Amino acid sequence: MLTLFGFIAASLTTFAFIPQVIKTIKTKSTDDLSPVMYGVLLSGVICWLIYGIIINDLPVIVANAVTACLTAIIFFISLKNHLKKKKVIM
Amino acid sequence: MLTLFGFIAASLTTFAFIPQVIKTIKTKSTDDLSPVMYGVLLSGVICWLIYGIIINDLPVIVANAVTACLTAIIFFISLKNHLKKKKVIM
Repeated sequence: MLTLFGFIAASLTTFAFIPQVIKTIKTKSTDDLSPVMYGVLLSGVICWLIYGIIINDLPVIVANAVTACLTAIIFFISLKNHLKKKKVIM
Repeated sequence: MLTLFGFIAASLTTFAFIPQVIKTIKTKSTDDLSPVMYGVLLSGVICWLIYGIIINDLPVIVANAVTACLTAIIFFISLKNHLKKKKVIM
């Protein structure tokens, strides 16, 4: 029961990023996104992934590997747009 | 050592949302954000919070309580804007 609850929680926090990834890829617009948020989040998720590998916990590894891929996509698109915008201003 | 690593990971994934909260409150613009992402994420974080309460794990409780507050702010602002926009179109 408890495992099932943890599994639901992990699935929700992992798959939550899918609608944002789809929206960002579709519109390519990231003006309202914070690249800092996604940079810090990606670092944190990679730390969780390493933590999962050290304690050898498969659910932690899988959930964070998927989240890392999803947040990386949003991070790189928003970073690219952010740098492009900065270049235009300069 | 392992606890410290988990603590760093939890801090990064919790505080990552602060820059986005500041940006969203400042600009009030949420066109590029996915309200669905923040809705699903908020549900997931609340599930983690309940999970933390059940297993009586303070770090899990604290990290998810803070993340729930931060994602709730972004969720409600983006939902409000989304509904307002829908009303204008109709």
